[in-house]
Amino acid sequence: MEHLLDKLKKNRDSGIYPYHMPGHKRRPFGDLNLELCGIDITEIDGFDNLHQPTGTLAQLQKQAAVLYGAEESFYLVNGSTSGVLSAISAALSQGGHILMARNCHKSAYHGIYLRNLKVTYLYPPVLTGYDIFDAILPEQILTALETEPEIGAVMIVSPTYEGRIADVRRIAEIVHERNIPLIVDEAHGAHLGLTGEGPENSCQVGADLVIHSVHKTLPALTQSALLHVNGSRIDRERLRRFLRIYQTTSPSYLLMASIDNSLRFIEQGGREAFSRFAESYGNMLEDLKTCRQLRILPWEKGRQDLGKLVISVKDTGMTGKELYDVMLHEYGLQLEMATESYALAMFTVNDGPEAYERMTLALLEIDHELDQRKGAETSKAFDDSMFFTEPISKIPLTKAWDMQTEKAELAESAGCYAGEFVNLYPPGVPVLVPGEEITEKLCMRIQGWIEGGLAVHGVENRNGKVYIKVLSEA
Amino acid sequence: MEHLLDKLKKNRDSGIYPYHMPGHKRRPFGDLNLELCGIDITEIDGFDNLHQPTGTLAQLQKQAAVLYGAEESFYLVNGSTSGVLSAISAALSQGGHILMARNCHKSAYHGIYLRNLKVTYLYPPVLTGYDIFDAILPEQILTALETEPEIGAVMIVSPTYEGRIADVRRIAEIVHERNIPLIVDEAHGAHLGLTGEGPENSCQVGADLVIHSVHKTLPALTQSALLHVNGSRIDRERLRRFLRIYQTTSPSYLLMASIDNSLRFIEQGGREAFSRFAESYGNMLEDLKTCRQLRILPWEKGRQDLGKLVISVKDTGMTGKELYDVMLHEYGLQLEMATESYALAMFTVNDGPEAYERMTLALLEIDHELDQRKGAETSKAFDDSMFFTEPISKIPLTKAWDMQTEKAELAESAGCYAGEFVNLYPPGVPVLVPGEEITEKLCMRIQGWIEGGLAVHGVENRNGKVYIKVLSEA
Repeated sequence: MEHLLDKLKKNRDSGIYPYHMPGHKRRPFGDLNLELCGIDITEIDGFDNLHQPTGTLAQLQKQAAVLYGAEESFYLVNGSTSGVLSAISAALSQGGHILMARNCHKSAYHGIYLRNLKVTYLYPPVLTGYDIFDAILPEQILTALETEPEIGAVMIVSPTYEGRIADVRRIAEIVHERNIPLIVDEAHGAHLGLTGEGPENSCQVGADLVIHSVHKTLPALTQSALLHVNGSRIDRERLRRFLRIYQTTSPSYLLMASIDNSLRFIEQGGREAFSRFAESYGNMLEDLKTCRQLRILPWEKGRQDLGKLVISVKDTGMTGKELYDVMLHEYGLQLEMATESYALAMFTVNDGPEAYERMTLALLEIDHELDQRKGAETSKAFDDSMFFTEPISKIPLTKAWDMQTEKAELAESAGCYAGEFVNLYPPGVPVLVPGEEITEKLCMRIQGWIEGGLAVHGVENRNGKVYIKVLSEA
Repeated sequence: MEHLLDKLKKNRDSGIYPYHMPGHKRRPFGDLNLELCGIDITEIDGFDNLHQPTGTLAQLQKQAAVLYGAEESFYLVNGSTSGVLSAISAALSQGGHILMARNCHKSAYHGIYLRNLKVTYLYPPVLTGYDIFDAILPEQILTALETEPEIGAVMIVSPTYEGRIADVRRIAEIVHERNIPLIVDEAHGAHLGLTGEGPENSCQVGADLVIHSVHKTLPALTQSALLHVNGSRIDRERLRRFLRIYQTTSPSYLLMASIDNSLRFIEQGGREAFSRFAESYGNMLEDLKTCRQLRILPWEKGRQDLGKLVISVKDTGMTGKELYDVMLHEYGLQLEMATESYALAMFTVNDGPEAYERMTLALLEIDHELDQRKGAETSKAFDDSMFFTEPISKIPLTKAWDMQTEKAELAESAGCYAGEFVNLYPPGVPVLVPGEEITEKLCMRIQGWIEGGLAVHGVENRNGKVYIKVLSEA
């Protein structure tokens, strides 16, 4: 079958004049060039309709399903966000009850709010020494389902933003014993299970709904994603309904073509490309073993994902944000994110040798410097894990988010109930959800992030004071 | 201020290596070239965050507000769909009551469903001789608000898909007398009010919330749009909340840069470009006045929008779809859409002389041919206006869409209640909403569309039979 990009280019060169949207008419405008506009079209003859596909797009979606081992796949143009919202909305009726890992993306919380769901959170264990959430454990889910038999669906995230992979096969078995659906937000795992080697993706081990951000770990354009569905626990018509609701009726063919492009080339040369990727990545980790101060989270098949380089700076006298800034300003290397105690760099199948060389050189040099000055200055010892609290929900999210709020100084807000989500961005996992009690520890944690120069969403930093929204009535 | 595209290109050429999403790492992959990937980034340092903007994107949004005469504007990357959903969700609490023009886009119906709203529809008058909905009248709104004082918000569409413009100024006055907000889906009017000439846009005449599809009538990429807010009737925080909910947390910088690019160049050379556009369009209409069979809806300032060429084929012995097909296959001209009785071609500020020349030549030739064979064959006389029925809602949409359905043959479905939306695409305005009674006339109308080769969404065409979903229990 013809690649969508080729088809779009043929249309561009066909001589057919567009008396339709988009308004650029496939002609350059301002600084927007022909290269881009020429292939940006709308649903014209021969190009199908994403919301009721019968031709090209239906075939492309079928190909995606085959590649991932899913029964049915859907192209998404509103990111994994639209996949998460659609999955949650399809899996449960209004007012239903969901069991959800607390490190889910904020779109999952939005789904709960939109559909008036009850939620029970599961806090994953914290990975000792790295201050990150580890993968959720099957036993946690088993216990929760036994305690709350009215739960109608389970949602987890795997791999996590930092690359932790859950035992999805076992979790699916546990969830399916109750005959309820398992949703896996596998946004960070679009590269899994494509070549017959390495860890399988969640479609291949039994999940009912799986969301993949194609743009995150595969070479596709930002905002492109996939949703897969398997088995009979999800009403397919209902799922399609919500995909139509949460996504624009003018989907971008650029985004869709970039999904097709990624999957096709993976299909053709994927095995080789991924084995080169694994080799380069493995070699870099080997080289970084000489680090004496920085600690690299080991790559472990089925436990820690290929490509997510977590660099811990604990007890080095440097913060993650400082490492991030040094990497950017002194080495010209833009990392994905940083917290107090670590920084995260992402590698994908589309990185060349330069990526590994520059990273290795920079980290070895910084490590050497840290080692030299060790003891010369007061060490800033971070233990972020002490801040991993489990906030107590006093008022359900769906109710609390619609209640009256007022602004309070963060420093004086302990004991109040949150009126807004608070999260560190990226990755946008909430540390505080509306209706939860603000504790002393949480205040300190958020204050620490802000002082460390991190991007905290949901608070206001004005004239050196930090304000947080709290519920007025509660 | 620097253009976003320039900023993205500078980043591409900076030598800074990306250890972050997207996975293509700004390098070509497969057939996806450097031109496209080089400028497709995520929220890295210096590029702000659409969901909590404080830098570049905040400034761009401010510039958009100034250009449109709005108090505050928001870039949208999930099309006008996300703007409509956010506007409705922000304007009313759950369970609220909305007064809505029946020719609103389906996303408005989705908003009603998501937020459990009550709805009262207003049917615009039908434009005699063209079988299209005309603009909604201020008096209709006045009467409805007097009859149902519990209505909490009003939503209309102007210009319509076919270019009909409402008296938004008067409508805003009427709506504001009740101190409730007016939402104008001005998706097809992103070009209005930008140059100080021509009709004003709805921000300039008092609407509270206005949605613009930048990609529809301005030279921006498909899926890009704007939402504007004015006055104090809309809680801004609440509006931002829903924008965050309905849009991806990985917004495409390509889409955002294309919005900036459009608005900047309009700002700089817009007056001249639009006056050239108006002149070319006017000259074409002048030339088409010699048509004896085809009838062109006249361009009328403030009533019928510049650029929407509605070509009526009534009483010509040809259907709109036939005209559409002839234009495509014999002349290489791709129109926007067609129904039985007319076809629609779109012109924008980015059309060159070729657009006008080819259209004029083709229409004059087809008209001549129609004139020659007039009377030689049985004339297919269409009167679509007889099919403009006003379906009666038997069960509220929010309830009906969640009820049990079954498939029925369309031909035998009269008297049943619809279980699914049915609409002609484009433009995606529903002719039938879940919970409404299916009448004999509607069956004939839908059957006619299908036989005429039009794209009808919400029905199934299998082995020559058409099936429709009806409510089982009702």
